[in-house]
Amino acid sequence: MKNICLLGSTGYIGTNALNIIKNNPERYRIIALGGGRNIDLLLNQIKEFKPLYAVVINSNLADELKNKLNNSTNTEILYGTKGYSEIATLSDVNLAIAAMTGSAGLLPTFSAITAGKDVALANKETLVMAGSLLINESKKLGVNIFPIDSEHSAIQQSIQGHSREDLKKIILTGSGGPFKDSPIERLSEVTPKEALKHPKWKMGRKISIDSATMMNKGMEAIEAKWLFNVEMEQIEILLHPQSIIHSMVEYMDGSIIAQLAPTDMRIPISYALSYPRHLKVELPSLDLLDIETLSFEKPDQERFRCLYLALAAGKIGESMPAVLNGANEIGVNAFLEGKIGFLEIPQLIEKTMEKHESFPLHNIEQVIEADQWAQSRAKKILEKMVGK
Amino acid sequence: MKNICLLGSTGYIGTNALNIIKNNPERYRIIALGGGRNIDLLLNQIKEFKPLYAVVINSNLADELKNKLNNSTNTEILYGTKGYSEIATLSDVNLAIAAMTGSAGLLPTFSAITAGKDVALANKETLVMAGSLLINESKKLGVNIFPIDSEHSAIQQSIQGHSREDLKKIILTGSGGPFKDSPIERLSEVTPKEALKHPKWKMGRKISIDSATMMNKGMEAIEAKWLFNVEMEQIEILLHPQSIIHSMVEYMDGSIIAQLAPTDMRIPISYALSYPRHLKVELPSLDLLDIETLSFEKPDQERFRCLYLALAAGKIGESMPAVLNGANEIGVNAFLEGKIGFLEIPQLIEKTMEKHESFPLHNIEQVIEADQWAQSRAKKILEKMVGK
Repeated sequence: MKNICLLGSTGYIGTNALNIIKNNPERYRIIALGGGRNIDLLLNQIKEFKPLYAVVINSNLADELKNKLNNSTNTEILYGTKGYSEIATLSDVNLAIAAMTGSAGLLPTFSAITAGKDVALANKETLVMAGSLLINESKKLGVNIFPIDSEHSAIQQSIQGHSREDLKKIILTGSGGPFKDSPIERLSEVTPKEALKHPKWKMGRKISIDSATMMNKGMEAIEAKWLFNVEMEQIEILLHPQSIIHSMVEYMDGSIIAQLAPTDMRIPISYALSYPRHLKVELPSLDLLDIETLSFEKPDQERFRCLYLALAAGKIGESMPAVLNGANEIGVNAFLEGKIGFLEIPQLIEKTMEKHESFPLHNIEQVIEADQWAQSRAKKILEKMVGK
Repeated sequence: MKNICLLGSTGYIGTNALNIIKNNPERYRIIALGGGRNIDLLLNQIKEFKPLYAVVINSNLADELKNKLNNSTNTEILYGTKGYSEIATLSDVNLAIAAMTGSAGLLPTFSAITAGKDVALANKETLVMAGSLLINESKKLGVNIFPIDSEHSAIQQSIQGHSREDLKKIILTGSGGPFKDSPIERLSEVTPKEALKHPKWKMGRKISIDSATMMNKGMEAIEAKWLFNVEMEQIEILLHPQSIIHSMVEYMDGSIIAQLAPTDMRIPISYALSYPRHLKVELPSLDLLDIETLSFEKPDQERFRCLYLALAAGKIGESMPAVLNGANEIGVNAFLEGKIGFLEIPQLIEKTMEKHESFPLHNIEQVIEADQWAQSRAKKILEKMVGK
């Protein structure tokens, strides 16, 4: 029986994870739920899963939730960063699902790992910002990190049973998002609404924009470096617009092992929960007879500038990926608020990175320091950009 | 260090295996070579690898080989079925590569397994004819069977690291051979020369015809049943004309693991020799950027009658697959000799199968009995077909 703390229970990954947990009551039990601002959904989840603890973002929401619950369950309500970290480290918990979005996921995830909990990791920022720290800590404590996203799950499934020494390269695939074939000169004019339309996956707003810029894929490359202990140079990024193959691993003999699957997050979520087993998931099989074209392309350097900035940050290492991530958060927000154009997102990030002298990360405080430096610097650069 | 007996050293698989062995002298040593009629090639191989033993098909060829060798090595020359079985069971040998073609490979392979040797198996007929016996014996003795062909190697690589309990189905792919898209009415007239032209793989004559009829794929399904301990119903056959994916395995969660590779037999040979590791093979990587179409089709029942006969034989089990195989050998020979048309191959097999009452196989003699019954019965049916 896995006793689970689910951080980010009301989001897309969280609700899907609960669906899988509900269908496998003999394997999983919810000990704690970490929600956000969606109190009504969290209320329903508490009533259904009866966790020992639930956490919301601040004390006002905690009071509101307590009122609505009206002592109908024994669930203890906590709030804030301290609350999230507290439930991630409960002695009853042996698996934390880290599905909070953005850099808010960093601290609770780090707390879970240092408390020796296995982590099913959906939060990209965590490994991008603090990969070296997290991986060192997880190795020291014998903690497993199971990736929750289609690409890293594909890589993990393709590496499983093969020797890491025989690995030649990881081939990380991405659809290329909605602007893969748009004329480049059009990109400066695209609206947030257009950028939010992903051709293959339904996702949150931030990640949809990261997907359109391919920052997403660059961050996944940094994550893959940490998760699978490879060099950035061993990671190749290919566009694969059909999103049938979710990533591949090439070995020394020329064999390529690939994972193909329907584009449904329940597959990587369930694999992260049941690794190395495959749970029964009620889904129609991939219709192979329906495949006709299946193609790969190298991502264009100009169109996907964010991707190449991320790869560069990954090679530099130290605090640079945290700075990339912090600047990107500011850039994506500014784009979504209509303050800057689509092509100004990478400009903002690049300018921030240029101003940063990277330093080695010895503790989580330094990661937060790099993030805060990047956000405040990016905001200043943004003001100038908007002012002009 | 693996000490190897190579049965079928002068054939296509044998020469490629020697190439890999030559490049990895710290891992592999040739103890014995089993050749056939190509004395000159065998002579060169003996001079290069200096085996303790070499075997040829009969005493005349043994004398000829001895004369040509003229005591230049200490290799002892043996001949005939007894000779092949002797080298397969040498105490020095810990891996036998079974690369003899046709039913001639059965006895030496069976000898190797009963002597407790691991077997790298390229000979299809062995598992088709005597799968239950071989697998029972290999389980009893803790012997490993490593498949040498692109499809089963792909399946083995895709199963490695995943639990057999989670397997939903094996998806065995085949190019469909040279007549996949020919008008069906043309098939009765195709010549051996046309049938020998395989679009993707260079292979021997018998296997090229088996590939054109897809008997080959049906036999691979029977082999897969034994190698991977699945039911025939769990094996799906799909045409995949581009021969990029060499087979796949679907799991309970909808994940499909696939192996992609260049069409080069050195890859499955080297994996069988180094399982579960991947050896370094000097080959250009698969050019993923070059892939455009990648498609799958269900094989047509009328066009590929042989395939469906093989699947039926696999479901019946017992002696029926051996009968299928024996009748197919007669049919393919008759076609290559111009005695019957391409579409008469399955007719001959089907008529032979109809006359057979299957019986359980308790020993290798019964397998040979079924084979001989099938060959003699098929010859009689052939005479009638040709006579009319």
